[in-house]
Amino acid sequence: MQPIRVGVLGATGSVGQRFIQLLEHNPWFEITAVAASGRSSGVRYAEACTWRLSANCPDCVRDLVVQPCEPGLDCEIVFSALPADIAADVEVAFAAAGYGVLSNASSHRMEPDVPLLVPEVNSEHLALIEIQRARRGWGKGFIVTTPNCSTVGLSVPLKPLHIAFGVRRVMVTTMQALSGASYPGVPSLDIIDNVVPYIGGEEDKMSREPLKILGVFSAAESRVLPAEMLISASCNRVATRDGHMEAVSVALDRKATLDEMLAAFREFRSVPYELGCPSAVQQTIVVRAEPDRPQPVLDRDEGAGMTVTVGRVRPCQVFDWKFTVLSHNTVRGAAGGSVLNAEIMAAQGLIG
Amino acid sequence: MQPIRVGVLGATGSVGQRFIQLLEHNPWFEITAVAASGRSSGVRYAEACTWRLSANCPDCVRDLVVQPCEPGLDCEIVFSALPADIAADVEVAFAAAGYGVLSNASSHRMEPDVPLLVPEVNSEHLALIEIQRARRGWGKGFIVTTPNCSTVGLSVPLKPLHIAFGVRRVMVTTMQALSGASYPGVPSLDIIDNVVPYIGGEEDKMSREPLKILGVFSAAESRVLPAEMLISASCNRVATRDGHMEAVSVALDRKATLDEMLAAFREFRSVPYELGCPSAVQQTIVVRAEPDRPQPVLDRDEGAGMTVTVGRVRPCQVFDWKFTVLSHNTVRGAAGGSVLNAEIMAAQGLIG
Amino acid sequence: MQPIRVGVLGATGSVGQRFIQLLEHNPWFEITAVAASGRSSGVRYAEACTWRLSANCPDCVRDLVVQPCEPGLDCEIVFSALPADIAADVEVAFAAAGYGVLSNASSHRMEPDVPLLVPEVNSEHLALIEIQRARRGWGKGFIVTTPNCSTVGLSVPLKPLHIAFGVRRVMVTTMQALSGASYPGVPSLDIIDNVVPYIGGEEDKMSREPLKILGVFSAAESRVLPAEMLISASCNRVATRDGHMEAVSVALDRKATLDEMLAAFREFRSVPYELGCPSAVQQTIVVRAEPDRPQPVLDRDEGAGMTVTVGRVRPCQVFDWKFTVLSHNTVRGAAGGSVLNAEIMAAQGLIG
Amino acid sequence: MQPIRVGVLGATGSVGQRFIQLLEHNPWFEITAVAASGRSSGVRYAEACTWRLSANCPDCVRDLVVQPCEPGLDCEIVFSALPADIAADVEVAFAAAGYGVLSNASSHRMEPDVPLLVPEVNSEHLALIEIQRARRGWGKGFIVTTPNCSTVGLSVPLKPLHIAFGVRRVMVTTMQALSGASYPGVPSLDIIDNVVPYIGGEEDKMSREPLKILGVFSAAESRVLPAEMLISASCNRVATRDGHMEAVSVALDRKATLDEMLAAFREFRSVPYELGCPSAVQQTIVVRAEPDRPQPVLDRDEGAGMTVTVGRVRPCQVFDWKFTVLSHNTVRGAAGGSVLNAEIMAAQGLIG
Repeated sequence: MQPIRVGVLGATGSVGQRFIQLLEHNPWFEITAVAASGRSSGVRYAEACTWRLSANCPDCVRDLVVQPCEPGLDCEIVFSALPADIAADVEVAFAAAGYGVLSNASSHRMEPDVPLLVPEVNSEHLALIEIQRARRGWGKGFIVTTPNCSTVGLSVPLKPLHIAFGVRRVMVTTMQALSGASYPGVPSLDIIDNVVPYIGGEEDKMSREPLKILGVFSAAESRVLPAEMLISASCNRVATRDGHMEAVSVALDRKATLDEMLAAFREFRSVPYELGCPSAVQQTIVVRAEPDRPQPVLDRDEGAGMTVTVGRVRPCQVFDWKFTVLSHNTVRGAAGGSVLNAEIMAAQGLIG
Repeated sequence: MQPIRVGVLGATGSVGQRFIQLLEHNPWFEITAVAASGRSSGVRYAEACTWRLSANCPDCVRDLVVQPCEPGLDCEIVFSALPADIAADVEVAFAAAGYGVLSNASSHRMEPDVPLLVPEVNSEHLALIEIQRARRGWGKGFIVTTPNCSTVGLSVPLKPLHIAFGVRRVMVTTMQALSGASYPGVPSLDIIDNVVPYIGGEEDKMSREPLKILGVFSAAESRVLPAEMLISASCNRVATRDGHMEAVSVALDRKATLDEMLAAFREFRSVPYELGCPSAVQQTIVVRAEPDRPQPVLDRDEGAGMTVTVGRVRPCQVFDWKFTVLSHNTVRGAAGGSVLNAEIMAAQGLIG
Repeated sequence: MQPIRVGVLGATGSVGQRFIQLLEHNPWFEITAVAASGRSSGVRYAEACTWRLSANCPDCVRDLVVQPCEPGLDCEIVFSALPADIAADVEVAFAAAGYGVLSNASSHRMEPDVPLLVPEVNSEHLALIEIQRARRGWGKGFIVTTPNCSTVGLSVPLKPLHIAFGVRRVMVTTMQALSGASYPGVPSLDIIDNVVPYIGGEEDKMSREPLKILGVFSAAESRVLPAEMLISASCNRVATRDGHMEAVSVALDRKATLDEMLAAFREFRSVPYELGCPSAVQQTIVVRAEPDRPQPVLDRDEGAGMTVTVGRVRPCQVFDWKFTVLSHNTVRGAAGGSVLNAEIMAAQGLIG
Repeated sequence: MQPIRVGVLGATGSVGQRFIQLLEHNPWFEITAVAASGRSSGVRYAEACTWRLSANCPDCVRDLVVQPCEPGLDCEIVFSALPADIAADVEVAFAAAGYGVLSNASSHRMEPDVPLLVPEVNSEHLALIEIQRARRGWGKGFIVTTPNCSTVGLSVPLKPLHIAFGVRRVMVTTMQALSGASYPGVPSLDIIDNVVPYIGGEEDKMSREPLKILGVFSAAESRVLPAEMLISASCNRVATRDGHMEAVSVALDRKATLDEMLAAFREFRSVPYELGCPSAVQQTIVVRAEPDRPQPVLDRDEGAGMTVTVGRVRPCQVFDWKFTVLSHNTVRGAAGGSVLNAEIMAAQGLIG
C-alpha cells in the first residue's frame, strides 16, 4: 500500500508537533505538507518551529516549507491542530475543497452531521460522513472530530459499562496535565505548589460530548441519538506535564459485581485493533490492581500513550462504583486519537 | 488571666512543630512541656528537633528539655501530635492522670463518648465530656479530638448547608497537600510530575467522620445521633506543600438558589469568635467570586490559615450544587483546630 | 512625621504588586497614586489588577483610580516597576518633572551619575544625586536604581569580604526563582521537572553591576571608581517560586580563616538599620551553620525577606572560599530594596 | 554469539531496576539471576519488587526467584547496585569467587588497582585488571567501577578538552536530579518549591574521581597517574526527576578558540562505539547551539540516555571557557555506564 499523503494544520504549535511525532513512523501515512499561521509561512519547518517534545525535530519534516493554512496543500487529508476560533472556518474550507479533515478542535464537534469519534467506542458514527457530504454538498471532503481530551479519558471506560449495565449518572473530577493548555499555556507561578480549580469551557464539554459519543446512530433519523445519562464534571489543573487523571463515580441501571465491572473493562474489544490499525492497542483499557494506580508518571505512556488505564475500582457509598482513569491527553486524547481516526477510516476504505 | 500551661506530645515531628508555631504567640496558653519518643528524651528541644517550618525554631521552646510521652509533664493540658498507633494508649494514660488531651490522632475519634470537635460546627458536643468522665472514671482529664484534615475542610461548609437545606448525599474528590503525610512522608519521586490517587484510610474517614460531626447531641441518649447522609470520597495526593482542595457535589433536601447557597456560607456564624477565642476568625467561610478560586498558594493562609475558602459555587448536573473548598490542612485541619478546641473549652470554663 | 506621599509605576504587574504589599504598612510612606499602562487607566485599582500575591488586594489601594504613567501624579516620589524599555523614557520624564524616582528597571543603572544602590553596601554613592541633578538640570527630581535581583544577593556578601580581604575573582552559579521572570513569565511546561540554563542578559548584569556597587565614590572625579575584580556568572532558572540561590567561589587578596570569613559576614553593620529605616534588619547577613542551608522555603522570608542568608562557608579547591547565598528576589532583590533606598534617603533628608 | 549470563545485585532497588530495564533488550547479555537483601530472598522478582520505572516490570525477570547477595548465583558477571556500605564486602566476595563485578558503588572506586571506568574516556585503564587479579590472588574475578553520577557528566567533556588544551582548573556547580538519591530518597517537602544546596559526599567525589579517570595508566608503575588539575564542586539538589545539570568553568593550559572548543567536543571519538558495543552512541557529546540548552526534559533521553549534551559554550570572565553539561544520571551516570563497561570488556575479550 502506498502511504496516504497527509498535511498538518497548525504544525508549529504543541499539538501540531505531537501530530508530527506520531506520524513520523506511521506506516500508513506520509507527511507531505505542514501549514501554520502567516508568520511562519515560507520558512523551513525546522526554522519556523521551536521543537519542544524532545531534543530534535524529526528529520521527515525538517526541510518541508511551511504553507499558509489554506486549501492547495499537497496532500489528501489534513490533521487540524488549529485553535477553535480559527478552525471553524479553515476546516470547512478544506473539506469543501475535497480534503478529509481530522480535527482536534472543538469547533464542529457538536454539529449533528459531524462524527465525534473515538474509534474503539463509536466507529459506527462514521456513517454520518455520507450525510455530511450530502447535506453540505461536499464531494470527497469531510470533517471528523476528536473529543476534548478529558472527554476521551472518560468516554472510553464508560462505553463498556454503558453496554453492560447502563450508565445513568456520572460524577467526575479531573486533575489535568499542563500540556492540555498547549504552549506557553499555564504560567509556572500559577501551578508550582498549586492547583487551579478551573479550566474554561472544560466542564461543559465533559457534560455534553460523552452523550453524543455514547449515543446510537439512527439511520432512520440520519443522526446520533444522544445517550440518556447525566454527567457532572469538576475540572482542575495540576502540576503534571502529561496525563489527565479523573476520579469517576457511576450510577448504573443494573447492579454489577466487582468481577463484572473488571470484566467489562478488560474485555472491551477494539475494532480498530481488529482492523489492523497501526496505532491501535490490543487492550484499550488496562485495569491495574494496585491500590495506588494509575499514576501519570508510571502509566501515561502505556501502549505508546494510546492505552487508557483504570484503577481503584471500588464501591461508591453514594452511587454504585467509583474508579480512577488516566489517559495521555496529547496522545490518546488529541493527536493520537485523530491519527487513529484516520487509520480506521483508511481501514474501512473511507480514505486512501 | 494567667496563661494555661500546656504540653505538646510528639513535639519534634511536623505536626508537633506546627503546634509550637501556633502556640508561640497565643495569649491564652504557655508551652511549659515538650515530649517526644525515647530518642529525643533529655535533650534540649532545639537540639532534638530539626525545625522545618521556617528558618528558626521559636525561642519559647529552644531550651525546654524534651520529656518522655508519659504523665508527669508540668502542664494542665496536652496537645497530642502522636501517630495513631501510639496515641491510643498514651492519650488515655494522660487523661486518666488528669490531663486534658486535645488530640489530632484518629485513635479515639469515633468513640461514642469522645467529642470530634470543630468548634464552629458542633461545640455543643462538648457535653460528651461529662459523659466521658463519668463512664471512664476520669476526674479532671478528658480527650477531645480533631477530625481528619480533609474531613474538617468538608464539614465546615456542609454545616450551614445542612442546617439550611438538609444535605443528603455528598460526592467529594480531594487534591491533598504533601504536609498531610507528615515528614519525611511522600517521596519526591512519587509526586514530581505526578498525582497519587490513594491515601490510606482517608476515604473511609471522610465518609464516616462528618456524620458524627454534623450529628445532634442527644442528652437523652447521652450520645451524638449521626447525621443521615451518604458521603463518597476519592482522595488524591498532589504536588502542593499545604492546603487541601476538595471538589464537592451535594444533593439537598430542599431546593436552594445560588443566593441562598452563598448566604448560607457567608452568614455562618462562629461561636468561638463570638466567645473571643484568639485563634477564631470572624468569617469562618470566605466565598470567592472569581471563577478560578480558591487556590492553595493564594488562599490557604487566609485568616492565618483558619479560614475555610469556598469558590466555584455552581449548579451540579447530577446533584443540586457543586463547589470547591480549600482549607489549610496542618493549621485549620490539624494543629490550629486543636488549639481552637482548647480555646473554646477555656472560654466555656472547661479548662483553665 | 507626616508620611511621604508615594506613587507606584507599573502598579498592576507583579513587581508593582510587591511594592504595594511592602508599602501597605510602611510607617514612612503612604501610597497616593498608582499608575499603569493605557488599558488600566481610569479604572479602580481593585478592578484593574488581578492580585496574585495572596488572597486579597490591600485595602489601601483598592479604590485608587489607576493613572497613566506620566508626570502629574499626586505624590512626591515614585517607585518604578516598569519594564526596562518603557522605564528608560518614563523615569527621565518623572525625574525632570521633579519627582524622585526609585527604580527597579535596568535602564539607567549603569549611567555614571545614577546611584546603583544597596543601602547596606554603598549608601555613600547617594552623593551622585547632586552630580546627577547638576548635570541634567533637574531641580528636586532624581533617579536612584536598584540592582538586578541576583546582583543584590551577590553584592551583599561580597561587600564585607571585599573590605576585609579584597575580593579579586568571583565565580557564581545561580538557581533563580520563577517570580524573577515576572508574570506570566516562565511557562510551566518549561520548568516542571526541568532546569533552564539561561536567563537573557542576566550573566552580563551580574558581571558588571557589582563592580559599580562595590566601587568607591570619588568626589574628585565625580563618579564611582569601579571595583577591580573579575566576576563570571552562570544563570539558571529552577522550579522555585521565590528566592534566588547562588553558589559562589571567591579568590581573595589576603588569606582568611574560616572564623574571619564568618566574622566578616556576621559583623557587617547596617547603616540603614542604624538610621532607623523601618525596612532594615539588624543583621543584614545571617550565617547558617547547618550543612544544608540556606534553602528557599526555609530561609527566603527571614527578616521579612530583607535578610540575606549565607551558608556552607567552606574552602574552595580552586579559589579560597566558597559559600551559598540566598536572597528573596522580589523583596530584598527588587521592591523591598527600592523601598529601603527611599527610606535611607528619607533618613538622610534627601526626600520628604 | 551466546549471550553472557549476568546477575544484578540489589535488583529490587531503583538502580537495580534501571539495570534490568537496560539489560532487557541488550543483545549481548541475558539476566539469569537477581539478588537482593534478605527480606526479598526466595520470592519471585515480580512480587519482591515495586517496579517504579514505568507501568510494568519487564517479563524477562518477572519469574526469576530473588537470591541472597552471595556467590553462587547462576551467572558469569554481576552488576552491583548495592549501597556503598554493603557493596564493600559483597563485591569482594563475588570477585574472589570468580565473578566479574561491574559496580556502581563508591566502595572500591579509588583503590589503585580498580579501574574507574568511563569507556569513551579511559578504556586503557582496564589494564589494571591484570594487576588487580595478581595482587589480590583472584582468578577470573575482578571489580570494575563506574564513577559517581555527577563525575561522569563532568569527566566526559573534560576529556577532549584535556587532550587538546590541557585542563588546569575546573569550577563546577551541579543541579542534580532526585533519582540520584534513589528511592525513597529526597522527601517531597524538601524539594517542592525548593533547592537543597547539599548532597553528602558528592563534592568530594567530584573533586577527586575525575583526576583518576583523566589520569594516565603507567605500565611501569602499575597504576594510574592522576591528572594534574584542581576541581572545585558545589552540589545542589533540584526538583527534576532525572538528568544532572552542571555549570562548568575551565582554565586551560593552551588558549582555545570557540571553534576549537566545539570541534574538540564534537570530534571526541567513541572507542566502545567503534568496537560495536550495543549501548554506545556514535556521538558521545552532542553540542547544542541554542542559547537555552541543554535542558533535562528535552535532552536527557538523547541517545537512549547515553549521550552527554553540552551547550552554552562561551567565554568565562575569570577562567577561559564556560559551558553547561547534562547527562542522564541513572543511565549514562550509573546503570547504563556499567552496562557499557561490561560491553567494552566483552568486545575486548575480557569477559564472555
